[in-house]
Amino acid sequence: MGRVTVRRKVTAFDSAPAADGIAERVRVDTLVVEEPLELRVAGRPLAVTMRTPGDDIDLVHGFLATEGVIRRRDDVAVARYCAGSTLDDETGVPQNTYNVIDVTLAPHVRPPSASLERNFYTTSSCGVCGKASIDAIRTQAVYDVGSDPVHVPAAVVSALPDKLRAEQAAFERTGGLHAAGLFGSDGSVLCVREDVGRHNAVDKVVGWALREGRLPLTGCVLMVSGRASFELAQKALMAGIPVLAAVSAPSSLAVELADEAGMTLAGFVRGSRMNLYSRPDRIG
Amino acid sequence: MGRVTVRRKVTAFDSAPAADGIAERVRVDTLVVEEPLELRVAGRPLAVTMRTPGDDIDLVHGFLATEGVIRRRDDVAVARYCAGSTLDDETGVPQNTYNVIDVTLAPHVRPPSASLERNFYTTSSCGVCGKASIDAIRTQAVYDVGSDPVHVPAAVVSALPDKLRAEQAAFERTGGLHAAGLFGSDGSVLCVREDVGRHNAVDKVVGWALREGRLPLTGCVLMVSGRASFELAQKALMAGIPVLAAVSAPSSLAVELADEAGMTLAGFVRGSRMNLYSRPDRIG
Repeated sequence: MGRVTVRRKVTAFDSAPAADGIAERVRVDTLVVEEPLELRVAGRPLAVTMRTPGDDIDLVHGFLATEGVIRRRDDVAVARYCAGSTLDDETGVPQNTYNVIDVTLAPHVRPPSASLERNFYTTSSCGVCGKASIDAIRTQAVYDVGSDPVHVPAAVVSALPDKLRAEQAAFERTGGLHAAGLFGSDGSVLCVREDVGRHNAVDKVVGWALREGRLPLTGCVLMVSGRASFELAQKALMAGIPVLAAVSAPSSLAVELADEAGMTLAGFVRGSRMNLYSRPDRIG
Repeated sequence: MGRVTVRRKVTAFDSAPAADGIAERVRVDTLVVEEPLELRVAGRPLAVTMRTPGDDIDLVHGFLATEGVIRRRDDVAVARYCAGSTLDDETGVPQNTYNVIDVTLAPHVRPPSASLERNFYTTSSCGVCGKASIDAIRTQAVYDVGSDPVHVPAAVVSALPDKLRAEQAAFERTGGLHAAGLFGSDGSVLCVREDVGRHNAVDKVVGWALREGRLPLTGCVLMVSGRASFELAQKALMAGIPVLAAVSAPSSLAVELADEAGMTLAGFVRGSRMNLYSRPDRIG
């Protein structure tokens, strides 16, 4: 466990082979590891995510923070891998399993509802729609990113994709990982994490920050390697991050949430160019 | 509702402007729409997904099929948008809402368990791990893709990414959509769908096929625009698709599932090259 990559035989095929005429060649390739992680709170299963092993304790802290369950490191009394829920195939001896984490919340923290995800997207009065999703998250959000006075030079933002890639240890070997990076407004690297799931990469970053006592992440920029979905904008807002930047396109609902919350959302950050979808006044 | 894209003002910023010195320019950009969709079965909420509106009825059929709840069109008695669960802000009149679909299963179909997702990833005996996830899905799968005798010329597979892109109506305008395409072994296009969520694009394709009475999809190839995750391999298997091809990298667990199920999994399908991770004998 804890492996981020695994090596495996693969048939490399070329239908337009070179002069030697070899179209098929078996070689060893590196794959990114994907494994389920179950999060339990007080022994009760809350969520399962398919993630790349590593930084799992950060991941569950980040998940609980961005879902509005916890705000500070002290809100979690214990977070640990469950022991003994698998038996070794050969010996029958109970094994420590590294795919289940049980969190004990501090006594002052209200336990999450069983249908955590659904609560964010629906309200009893309004059925389910983008506006209701935004309203639900704005009600939960405790940080006012709209009043964050941070200013980020455009050249700093433009340099972030290369910095993110430089910190990505596994991507070069697998081509299969999303990355999320937390940066200061001067472009300094605070934390970079990789995962098969883009939301997991962000949760790992936010969980790291929470455990370091850094929430809210005032004055920071979150750079993501792919697209900016509603879910990523939600997570940035819940962590108090005023600037979200993405290499690719944002969705309509991500832009609406950023706009209403006063978060700066930059998309298509490529070369010297970027598109600013909300609060462009912070960049320049 | 039903909009796939929306237009919005954006500040296009260039920190290395051309000779005219204009670094910022406000223009109108096209964004891909992301909205929640709630699936209810017999009035009970089952799942919420963030999706691009359109082909919603196909989406819920595909979701229920790839989760093992239904197998045929006749397994669904009624699937329709819920009416009247929102009130118009100005008039107070109940509105038809297009983000909630209620499915009534046929009497012979066993209703899904409340924690559908978790069932796929865990078993009571083994905690949660990749092997357990694979076993759970192989137990659910009713089609034996391993015995499908299909053979696909390599040149056909190599041509699929361009065909997929050619069918993508919204991508060119937004850069923000995943695509999934179902093709015959001769490269003929059967169905292409786009969505902000890659799993939704696949569900829309599978749901279309189910409603057309085409399941299992013997002899077909599923081509996806991004990476091949465990979830996508699961959906292909549940639909009886023998060949899954992806433009980018597969995960370790996607390869393991394909290998155990006898599905051909191709990754990095680019130009005349591709990597074959399982059952390479079908391509050539």
